[in-house]
Amino acid sequence: MASSILRNPMLSSPTTTITTPSLPSSSSKPSPLSFRFPPSHHRSSLSLRIKSLRLSCSLSDPSPPLRRRRPEYIPNRISDPNYVRVFDTTLRDGEQSPGATLTSKEKLDIARQLAKLGVDVIEAGFPAASKDDFEAVKTIAETVGNAVDGDGYVPVICGLSRCNKRDIETAWEAVKYAKRPRIHTFIATSDIHLEYKLKKSKDEVIEIARNMVKFARSLGCEDVEFSPEDAGRSEREFLYEILGEVIKAGATTLNIPDTVGITLPSEFGQLIADIKANTPGIENVIISTHCQNDLGLSTANTLSGAHSGARQVEVTINGIGERAGNASLEEVVMAIKCRGDHVLGGLYTGIDTRHIVMTSKMVEDYTGMQTQPHKAIVGANAFAHESGIHQDGMLKHKGTYEIICPEEIGLERSNDAGIVLGKLSGRHALKDRLTELGYVLDDEQLSSIFWRFKSVAERKKRVTDADIIALVSDEVFQPEALWRLLDIQITCGTLGLSTATVKLVDADGKEHVACSMGAGPVDSAYKAIDLIVKEPATLLEYSMNAVTEGIDAIATTRVLIRGNNNYSTTNAITGEEVQRTFSGTGAGMDIVVSSVKAYVGALNKMLDFKENAPTKVPSQNNNVPA
Amino acid sequence: MASSILRNPMLSSPTTTITTPSLPSSSSKPSPLSFRFPPSHHRSSLSLRIKSLRLSCSLSDPSPPLRRRRPEYIPNRISDPNYVRVFDTTLRDGEQSPGATLTSKEKLDIARQLAKLGVDVIEAGFPAASKDDFEAVKTIAETVGNAVDGDGYVPVICGLSRCNKRDIETAWEAVKYAKRPRIHTFIATSDIHLEYKLKKSKDEVIEIARNMVKFARSLGCEDVEFSPEDAGRSEREFLYEILGEVIKAGATTLNIPDTVGITLPSEFGQLIADIKANTPGIENVIISTHCQNDLGLSTANTLSGAHSGARQVEVTINGIGERAGNASLEEVVMAIKCRGDHVLGGLYTGIDTRHIVMTSKMVEDYTGMQTQPHKAIVGANAFAHESGIHQDGMLKHKGTYEIICPEEIGLERSNDAGIVLGKLSGRHALKDRLTELGYVLDDEQLSSIFWRFKSVAERKKRVTDADIIALVSDEVFQPEALWRLLDIQITCGTLGLSTATVKLVDADGKEHVACSMGAGPVDSAYKAIDLIVKEPATLLEYSMNAVTEGIDAIATTRVLIRGNNNYSTTNAITGEEVQRTFSGTGAGMDIVVSSVKAYVGALNKMLDFKENAPTKVPSQNNNVPA
Repeated sequence: MASSILRNPMLSSPTTTITTPSLPSSSSKPSPLSFRFPPSHHRSSLSLRIKSLRLSCSLSDPSPPLRRRRPEYIPNRISDPNYVRVFDTTLRDGEQSPGATLTSKEKLDIARQLAKLGVDVIEAGFPAASKDDFEAVKTIAETVGNAVDGDGYVPVICGLSRCNKRDIETAWEAVKYAKRPRIHTFIATSDIHLEYKLKKSKDEVIEIARNMVKFARSLGCEDVEFSPEDAGRSEREFLYEILGEVIKAGATTLNIPDTVGITLPSEFGQLIADIKANTPGIENVIISTHCQNDLGLSTANTLSGAHSGARQVEVTINGIGERAGNASLEEVVMAIKCRGDHVLGGLYTGIDTRHIVMTSKMVEDYTGMQTQPHKAIVGANAFAHESGIHQDGMLKHKGTYEIICPEEIGLERSNDAGIVLGKLSGRHALKDRLTELGYVLDDEQLSSIFWRFKSVAERKKRVTDADIIALVSDEVFQPEALWRLLDIQITCGTLGLSTATVKLVDADGKEHVACSMGAGPVDSAYKAIDLIVKEPATLLEYSMNAVTEGIDAIATTRVLIRGNNNYSTTNAITGEEVQRTFSGTGAGMDIVVSSVKAYVGALNKMLDFKENAPTKVPSQNNNVPA
Repeated sequence: MASSILRNPMLSSPTTTITTPSLPSSSSKPSPLSFRFPPSHHRSSLSLRIKSLRLSCSLSDPSPPLRRRRPEYIPNRISDPNYVRVFDTTLRDGEQSPGATLTSKEKLDIARQLAKLGVDVIEAGFPAASKDDFEAVKTIAETVGNAVDGDGYVPVICGLSRCNKRDIETAWEAVKYAKRPRIHTFIATSDIHLEYKLKKSKDEVIEIARNMVKFARSLGCEDVEFSPEDAGRSEREFLYEILGEVIKAGATTLNIPDTVGITLPSEFGQLIADIKANTPGIENVIISTHCQNDLGLSTANTLSGAHSGARQVEVTINGIGERAGNASLEEVVMAIKCRGDHVLGGLYTGIDTRHIVMTSKMVEDYTGMQTQPHKAIVGANAFAHESGIHQDGMLKHKGTYEIICPEEIGLERSNDAGIVLGKLSGRHALKDRLTELGYVLDDEQLSSIFWRFKSVAERKKRVTDADIIALVSDEVFQPEALWRLLDIQITCGTLGLSTATVKLVDADGKEHVACSMGAGPVDSAYKAIDLIVKEPATLLEYSMNAVTEGIDAIATTRVLIRGNNNYSTTNAITGEEVQRTFSGTGAGMDIVVSSVKAYVGALNKMLDFKENAPTKVPSQNNNVPA
């Protein structure tokens, strides 16, 4: 990591200044504002974490901003008017994406990573959806919600609830163990939702909202967020009224969702400005944005909302979520970081951007929602150097085409980094690297990983972070293994029928063998497994990608299945019973073997959900407040 | 398709009106503007094409807009001030994405599809990059550039060139066969580019730009586009000056690129407004946007530019392009379609949106740039019904969560459509469907596809469009087959070493056999191929996805390789020599076989490029203008 300074192109030309037009000046004269690449945190990249998040993009700025501390957390107030809270809803809105179902262990792991990233609020789930969801939120509240760091930072843990007593009670029961618990309750306010979904009048909706916010406060929760669902299509006057009422009832954050992603940035900014100007008591609460991405405008809408006065932004890692997803954390945060000073009136966040890439990869891996190569900030091609396009070094200055220094988001340049461990590395080195990558493993897990790591290291020239993550994901973050693959043997090709013989072990250690023919090696193996497990499932998706270069890399296979028996949960937003789908991943150097492991993993996840046993997760902190 | 009317939720509630806030009103009163779902083209969805593109989103609109005709094409002027030209650069900017290299045949196919979509301008390539690029642009100019439809529509065919005589001459030689040829020339204007890339003064750059635009006109080209590269970071006064000069020299379109994707929407809109207000002679030309997506804001920036007066938008299908890509055609077009009337002052485009999904799939397939599931408009999850989330029908009104009717972009609902052909379908039915899907095949190609189609139809319950496309792509759009897979036999599993035996046929029909062991079935097969082909290559990427449901679906494998020998081309923008990479795809029900076909395909593409023979493409129209 220290070598990143050597790759800093600015060091060889430290006086470069590039002028750039500024907003909102409409003068024909260029503004004297300027910025530089890359930002200043490289001065001491190792010692800084959350404190030094404010990076100046301006080399010639006469008064470079001081490292700003994250303001002290008070639910309804932020002492610094330019600080924007980041509310991450990957575990709630993101997890409700089709097929993105996460196990409790995966959720906890992502929550820990979000805390590393420094998000202000983690929406950990929708506790009323199922017992499994409840337990996941509770575990995160107990652990991540109590892990206060040296600067006094600990994320708020938030649980979603519809506007009814049962949901709110359940949410409180799940989040109350956190040091900073929050209940987020919502009800739709647009005419179309009132008419078709709620079948209620405006007065009835106001009454419900007011009573439920009061109820949440009455439970002892001092941090209550309220969302008028589909605000983007709601009548303005009605919005002002209901928002004013919930403020009186004790709401501390008002979230304004563009639920169907229909607004353009200017519209959404105006909506926030209008709410700020017309809602009684609005000065005593925080305004928040929640922008869906149906027209590809969620990032722009979020920024526009912040520019108009919102001081919380609801986002997800990689922008995942239902339909076209949400505003993505990395885009919103990096846009604020790059342009906050010059275009957004000095806005900044508390995010330690150097954890963006790792968090993105973890979420991609666990949810199976793969980002496209041209995804902004975190896509495989987002940084030109990654794709070898500038590899001959003819480009004289990186800043000509690169506006963000890759190290700033935690991306190591692939040509000189990424070789983190070799076959001579020991257990200690592996454990250290895993910890840096955000994985907390017990000794047994570490032993299992280490053995496989050595096996890979012997066959591969270099073992990268991506390889290690694939191994961890494969070995550690699998659901409780009801069924485990012992052996498989396959014959296939163009000359005859594919045949697979599979040996599985059940939870009691008993071995089962079956063979089957099929349309190809994977089809025949899956059919053999079906003969043993006897749990009918429909395969919805099957995909694979080599996580690292070369076919000798560890390929990760992912499958998505839906049980033919009914496994349902409640969708928070639509209130519908949703057929759960289950994903499984398998990693390995043999794509057929990894495909089989993925399928067994998905079956285990589905059977685990069926059992509905609360997942046992080791709690890091049992000092549970009363 | 006719049955879509039955699924139109509006028919059961035709009086529904939803109020929505409008821009730029900042009043606290809601505006009376309203919109409805879905739009009106379902009234006669089959008979309408380009003429009926203007869909009202407003049910209660007192004067529903007439079906607007696309204004007559005049290079520097548009008779309707609200019409926005769509300039597609998938084949130029998109194709320069790492690994997205297209064959000439694939380019022609995409160009035909773009014409179906009704784009105003097709930037077909950068003719000076290589002989292969030149031939591809020329072929498109000769065919697609002369296929005038009944309404007089034919796309402009544009070739990119740097600001030098050789590039411009080459571009003209390639595009001049089109009915409406355009040369697009560019030079950088930002300080950072002047200093580090061009090493020229501003006066020198103005002189070059003026002379080269004049030169392009002197060749007989009456449609010349000029781009000041990195305009987003250029000094305003310098921009006004150089743009004024190129207008005097004869430029007809001025394109304003945010080359590094650093501007926020308000900034970019202001840039366009400033240029419009301050550039001498600007009223005689068209202003264009070209927004990169590095901060995830390209769609918003493009819309902001159009709102400020740009009347051409440069976009790519799926938003592909270098780094984080470009503004995506489907997002920009659908945002204008949904919100043009209410928020953008009545803007509209000439795009027939019902071809969006098919075009998106073709580009995804040919370039290998897969869209993420939550990609707006065209992602697999973008429409909730696709993912089964609303499958139990509890949702009372689709408009509660769906702002675009899927049929509007050509997406058939998967539960009742998509079963287009069965095993009893004949050659004629297959040919008809292929034509509808945009594929023009000769008899030999059709025979080959038909045989495989029958084989799939016998094994699968339903053969979908996606299956057919996978087959076409696999059989027809492969490069000239220097090597062809004859047979393969594989043994693999957890019990021993994977072993593959491969039999290939060379161009002379001679058979070659080799066997190899490897880390898995694919690795061993690739090693066996390497023993035969003896063309060293590095495998950069390996991925696979099942294009349809179930493991009995046709899985498409894609590999990306880079030759260890040097295959380079010139990057238009950076001027660098770029190492070409080559992709190959293989489709089949056996993932190992499809993996092998993909690798052989990529090797063939690489060897084809090495030969550098102009690809032979059947010309549809040989009435070449002098």
